[in-house]
Formats: sequence, C-alpha cells, structure tokens
Amino acid sequence: MSKDEFVKDITNIDDDFARWYTDIVIKAELADYTATKGCIAIRPYGFAIWENIKDYTDKKFKETGIQNVYFPELIPESLLQKEKDHVKGFAPEVAWVTNAGGQDLDERLCLRPTSETIISTMYSKWLSSWRDLPFLYNQWCSVLRWEKETKPFLRSREFLWQEGHTIHETEKEARERTLLMLNIYADVIENLLAIPVIKGIKTETEKFAGAEETYTVETLMYDGRALQSATSHYFGQNFSKPFDIKFQNRNGQEEYAYQTSFGMTTRLIGAIIMAHGDNRGLKLPPKVAPIQAVIVPIAMKKEGVLDKVNEIYEKLKTNFRIKVDDREQYSTGYKFNDWEMRGVPLRIEIGPRDIENNKCVFVRRDNFEKIEVNLDEIEEKLAEILDDIQKNMYNLCLERMNNKTSVAHNMDEFKNALNTNQGFIKTMWCGSADCENKIHEETGAKSRCLPFEQEHLGDTCVYCGKKADKMVIWGRQY
Amino acid sequence: MSKDEFVKDITNIDDDFARWYTDIVIKAELADYTATKGCIAIRPYGFAIWENIKDYTDKKFKETGIQNVYFPELIPESLLQKEKDHVKGFAPEVAWVTNAGGQDLDERLCLRPTSETIISTMYSKWLSSWRDLPFLYNQWCSVLRWEKETKPFLRSREFLWQEGHTIHETEKEARERTLLMLNIYADVIENLLAIPVIKGIKTETEKFAGAEETYTVETLMYDGRALQSATSHYFGQNFSKPFDIKFQNRNGQEEYAYQTSFGMTTRLIGAIIMAHGDNRGLKLPPKVAPIQAVIVPIAMKKEGVLDKVNEIYEKLKTNFRIKVDDREQYSTGYKFNDWEMRGVPLRIEIGPRDIENNKCVFVRRDNFEKIEVNLDEIEEKLAEILDDIQKNMYNLCLERMNNKTSVAHNMDEFKNALNTNQGFIKTMWCGSADCENKIHEETGAKSRCLPFEQEHLGDTCVYCGKKADKMVIWGRQY
Repeated sequence: MSKDEFVKDITNIDDDFARWYTDIVIKAELADYTATKGCIAIRPYGFAIWENIKDYTDKKFKETGIQNVYFPELIPESLLQKEKDHVKGFAPEVAWVTNAGGQDLDERLCLRPTSETIISTMYSKWLSSWRDLPFLYNQWCSVLRWEKETKPFLRSREFLWQEGHTIHETEKEARERTLLMLNIYADVIENLLAIPVIKGIKTETEKFAGAEETYTVETLMYDGRALQSATSHYFGQNFSKPFDIKFQNRNGQEEYAYQTSFGMTTRLIGAIIMAHGDNRGLKLPPKVAPIQAVIVPIAMKKEGVLDKVNEIYEKLKTNFRIKVDDREQYSTGYKFNDWEMRGVPLRIEIGPRDIENNKCVFVRRDNFEKIEVNLDEIEEKLAEILDDIQKNMYNLCLERMNNKTSVAHNMDEFKNALNTNQGFIKTMWCGSADCENKIHEETGAKSRCLPFEQEHLGDTCVYCGKKADKMVIWGRQY
Repeated sequence: MSKDEFVKDITNIDDDFARWYTDIVIKAELADYTATKGCIAIRPYGFAIWENIKDYTDKKFKETGIQNVYFPELIPESLLQKEKDHVKGFAPEVAWVTNAGGQDLDERLCLRPTSETIISTMYSKWLSSWRDLPFLYNQWCSVLRWEKETKPFLRSREFLWQEGHTIHETEKEARERTLLMLNIYADVIENLLAIPVIKGIKTETEKFAGAEETYTVETLMYDGRALQSATSHYFGQNFSKPFDIKFQNRNGQEEYAYQTSFGMTTRLIGAIIMAHGDNRGLKLPPKVAPIQAVIVPIAMKKEGVLDKVNEIYEKLKTNFRIKVDDREQYSTGYKFNDWEMRGVPLRIEIGPRDIENNKCVFVRRDNFEKIEVNLDEIEEKLAEILDDIQKNMYNLCLERMNNKTSVAHNMDEFKNALNTNQGFIKTMWCGSADCENKIHEETGAKSRCLPFEQEHLGDTCVYCGKKADKMVIWGRQY
C-alpha cells in the first residue's frame, strides 16, 4: 500500500483544513462522535495525550501551592444568578436538570459551565480570618456549554478542563497569582506542546463574564487562524461581594477577598493537531506523545529478529514510551504509514542485516530524516533525537507564526494582510469597543489580546484614525 | 486546651456513630455540604486521599493493559432503555436534562448513573474483528444517582469513581478479567487502606442490574456494619446483544463479545474513616495519608529550633509526605490535638533539649506510643515505623472483623448474634431469593456475598431449614 493510497481518506490539508482536521481526529483514533449530539468520546490515544498534559500541568500547579478539590457538577439556578455579568455570559448556553429521582425539581439545576458560583458560596462559608488565606484550589473535571456548532476538542458541548479558583488577602497577591498561572500555561504550551504563544490581556469585549481582567495565551494554527489556548482571570471583588466572601483582616476589619480563576481544556489536543499536523496525518511533539518511538521489525519472521526487538524494547521502555508493532496481518509498509499517520515522533526499523551490523535505523516524523544508530548507543541517541524533534517542531511553528504575522496601519492594509496571508495582524487601537466590533463585522477577525510585548507601530487607531497608544493583535478564530 | 475540650464537638463514637462520622468529615475538613442538596464539596484534605487511591489503582490497572478514556456524561433516554434489567435498576434514580441552550430537548438526556449503555454503542461502532479485541478501557469521572437519603462519601447523589468496561473474544478471558480486577480492588483496600476484605460473589438479588454475575469485596466498619467496597461484573453477552457489539471470530463467523465492568468510588474515603477512626478523630493509614508525619516544633521561638526543624524537613520531604506546623497563633498542645484529629499517622516533636541531644520524639497516632529517635537515624526510623503503623492498623481491623463475625444455624442464633455483636454472620443458605428477602425483612441484614472461602457449617438453610450447600455472609449496611 503506497502512501498516497493510505492517506486517501484524509482530506488534503490545503484543500479543506476543517475536513482534514476531523479526518485526523477520527482516523488517528483520538476521538469519535457519539449518540449524544455535540459530545465526543475521547479514545485511548487521545486521552493519553490529555493525561500527559494533565500530569505535567498538575505538577507545576502543585509546586506553586495549588491543591486539588471537587465541587458539585450541578448548580442551583439561584446561585448562577448572583453575579449579573456572569449569568448574562453563561445562562444562554447551560443545560438544565429539571427532573430527578422521578420528580420535578422545585429549582432547576444547571450543569456547571464553570464553577465560580458554587465555589464562591463555599469560600464564603470556609473563610473567616486573613490567616486562612490564600485558598489555592483547582479541579480537573468536565463542563458543559450548549454550543450550536461543535467540532471535536475545539468546541464540544462537554469538554474536560481544569479550573483553578483562588482567593487572597490582597489585590497584589491575587494579581500576581493571575500572572503566575498564565506563565504556567505558556510553559505547558511552549515546552510540552511545542507551540509558541503570545501572552497578553483581553479587551473589555473579550474578557470573561464577571472578570475584572482576563489574560490569555494565544496560538496560531496551520491555516493562520488563532486559538485562545488558556486564560487566567483577575476578578477583584466582583464575586466576593455578591457571594459574601469576607475575612477579618490584619487590622481587625472585615474585608472582601481578592479572587482569581484560570482554565485550560481538552481544546489543547485540537491545538496540537492543527499546529503540527500535515498531509501524512498527526505529528506529535515527543514530550506529549503517548508513544514516543515505535519499533517496526523488518522481516520479522526471520530467526532472531523479534528476540532482538524485544531486547531493545526492554532496554528502552524504562525511560521512554515505546511500542513494538509485531502485528502479523499488516505489511511493513502499512505499518510505516500507519504510525506516521498517528504522529509517532520516531520510528525505529530493525531487520536481520541491521542486527548483523549491530545497528538500527531511526526515521524522524518531523522531517523524515533517516539516521543509522549503533545499538550500543541507542538510548543516548533516542534521547538526543527526541529532544531535537521537540525543538525543531517548536521552531517550525514559531517560523510559521512569524511569517503569518502582519502589521497594518489602516483597514486596507488590514484586509489585504488577512486575505493574502491569514494570521495575526498587529495594529494600533484607540481602545473603543466600537472600533473593535466594526473590525470584527468587516473582517471576521477578533481582537486576540493586547500583548505584553507592546510595539510602537504609529499613533493612530487602525480603524478610526484617532489617537491610539495600544497595540492589539487580531485574528480569525474557529 | 485539653483533649477533652478539643474534641468536645465530635460526638462520642459509641454514643452515636452516624453523628461521629459526619462530625469527622466536617471537622477534619474532608468534605462539606453544599447548596446543591445531596452533593458534597470534597476539600483538599479529602481529595488528596482520593488522589492517593487513584494514583495507586490507576498504576495497577495500567499494568494489566487498561487504558483510560472519556465518554459523554449525558446519555439519551433511548439508549438507557436498551437493556431491560439495566433500565429497571437505574431509571428510578437518574436526573434528566430536559432543556439546554434555551430550548426544550426533543429527547431527554440523563446524567450517567453508570456508562454501560453509551460505551456499548461505541464498542459496537469500533469493533469488527477478533484482532481488535480486547478493549480494556476505564474512565475516572463522576456519576449521579438521585438517592433519597444521603451521607457524605457513603451515599452522595454525585460521587467520583472509576468505571472499567472491557470486551473480550471469549467468555473465559472475560471471566478472568472480572476476577483480576476484583483482586486489584482487594489489593487496594487491604494494602493501601489497611482494611481486610471478604471476596465473594453476590446473590441474584444483589447483583448489578444487567450483570450475569457480580463479584464484590466486602469490609466491616467500626460499628459492625458492612460496606460493599468495590464490585466487578461479568456481563456475558447481556449488553453485547442489545447493543450489537459483535465481531468476526477466528472462524470467520459473527459472534457477540463477552463483556465486563468494574467500579470503585469515593465511598472508600468513608470506609477509611469508619474502619480506623476513634474518639480522637480520623486515623489514616500511612500509605494513603496526605500527610504522613507532621513536625511540631517545641518552644519554636527559641534560637535554632525552626532552623533544625527545616533542616529535618528538607531531609525527609524527598521520600515522605511531611508537614511542618509552625503556626504562631496556636499552642503546642492545640497542634498535637489538631493533627491527631486529622489522623496524621505520626507526630515528630523537636525542642531545644532534643536538639542538644541530637534526637527527636516520634508519637504514633495508632497507639500513642512515644519513641525517642536519634536524628542521624530519622529517615530509616520513619520508614520503619510508618510501615509498622500500616501493619498494625490492618491487624486491628482484622481482629475486629474476626471478633464481629458470628456463625448462625437458625434464625434465633442469627438474631441473637446481630443484636449482641453486630457484624458479619455466616450461615448456610438454600439459594432461594425468598429466604434472602425474609431475612432482610426480619433483621435488616442483607446478604453480602457467597465468599470464595466457603466453609461447611451444616446442611440446612438458616431460614427455611431445607437442604443447603452454600455459605453466605450477611450484615447490615448503611
């Protein structure tokens, strides 16, 4: 079976990116559609990616003092109503439980779209003195948002995430926590997923319902669309006042706590697919890949081949995630294509002649380079090359992001850039929501953020031409 | 503050065990009641216990080839209906989503009470050949069962669990898997939680709705009530037929797959409380304790004390879960009581005189023994004593279980045993559901299981006096 035949049921990435994406999701067995409309089943290969993301992140969180907890998934309607911006933002897309245990409920319960409200009621109950602070809690759970259009991982009605919720004695401490968590997200996405990020603050229009400020890490995908990859919010006292989260401060006075929340979701699996994939299929960064290297025996029925393969497997499996493909029903060529499509970063080929020469062949998924490796050096070489693949994948993404980032001083330049080289567009902006909305209406691009790394690109707003001293990055999203 | 004062808001364990239990849950900050009736918030200390259980179990699962996955939490009503025993068992206690995204739904969706139905539809879709088998999938998630009476951890409307679902080529393999998982549960409960188990098979009346056979690990709590601690089910083809989970077998014929499922829940946190706790509060087995030892400095303002404490902490923290209690607002006596109440297995006391003599004092939570330890040997000693505490706690539980296990040959003996020494009661049983139901009606005790370790206690049924060749263990539950 040739490569062309093998990938024939994967749409060409440049012909129809959206279809290419769902083809990969299904064919690489990351997830599948279910009988529950808009909700996916995450299959073992997809879930193993999520477990790697989760383990890495959870460890980073705990190093900063975060503790895990679990709050109810059902929230009484009256609680959701307590913070007015919050309910306005979330109520339209919640799902309601109205009947349970054979009886209609007196009060509807919504499936959590996010848990600020239920957690805030408990914080109010548990907090009394400044000595109790901070509360640095997080939960790994699922949430439900009744989206009209869904897409596996990117926009699912139910998705998995972590939601961190902290309260603090001072505004300063809460603000520091907001940025600390944003930096952990940037670390996860850049170092684990090999995707460069732009860090910044959301505009008023784009911030989280109920937040004082929302910080974001934005990434750019293969087709030049932007993906909001994780967000961290500073709430000030917006929730602590309606939810009565107060404490006796060091001066013996009552004060409302300063609050944050931050979240990251299974959408990141979508980001990996769309940032790294190609016409051969998925391409996984070694650090997050469930299988880092697959050993494919050549002429595996020849005496000694499988013994040698298993010997190597035993040697490598302690420090690497390794799989041996000894399936009898498939040809070697089929296996090569299959593991490439599933994005395994490295293939190790070993046949009778290799064994004679005490060597094997590494084939990289990122650039298809073939490397002869002496079997005595296989562990060091594997570590070295996986590391190089990880770096190379990051650099390729960074290069693409830079190539797809344009500067616009007026709307002609803006539209031209978006049409000829879809990606991020940097402009100056006057700060008015009106200009922001009009840009969205005219181009489909939304403000991604005001990046921390501001540049001076002139002194006038790209839309209205009035005085402007802020740089915004814009981009179309999914 | 004396011990008596400190524990005054914990009900005496022998006066009212149920209230003692909830007092511990609240006061040790394991969980709390929420605005969502019947659902608890699991606080950091309680959740850390669950994380330890989860990590240990997940590793054991994976060693047997289990892979984690995630399926939707919402299940369409029509799916729930497909297996008739299953729907009869679960439909009365499900919660229904009837409205979402601002619209009434065409078909109600239930919040999963368990996931056999939704998973089976996907298995049907994914399975084609015997070469695909087995599927060995598991998910860690929450489920919802609308119980009328709730109790934190033991019977919560929402609870956390793992549910494993496997399908196999042969009945033999599926049956082996059912028992393999049961043995992992027994290992978790005996070796991690230090609670002895009785392994056995449930009667027809008590088996899982839709199962061919249900296996269980049963434990006995402080007050002599039994707790079903985990179950493993063999389904045969009960789900694979209505859900059309079939494959081409090695002979080229279509065959329905053989299925299992198995589950273990946050109820185990309740088991730890009720199996080990006492009038001082919680008592945690070292292997599952979030804090294995707490260092309490004596005269901590004296020069050098906190430095030494931190030096010891740094030395111990690599291999043990250690906390230093350097809170200034509490007396040493208060701290002693507080950590005893929270069940920390070992307290390490260090004061100026200890430092002079290069020693510290260990105080065991299980038997309050005080042990002088040379600081040069602190690591070895800590490992040794934590190990001894773990064993001692298991042995104490085993002794109690044995003391609270009676044999009855007739109903007089049965009732007498239950009233004078509530616990497990072993009897012969004819196998009729009628006798089983009447025993329950008359005594409140239910059959726990037919233990694997059968004994010959006579030849007649404890209830009807007819011929009997099976031994059953009975007990009251929560």
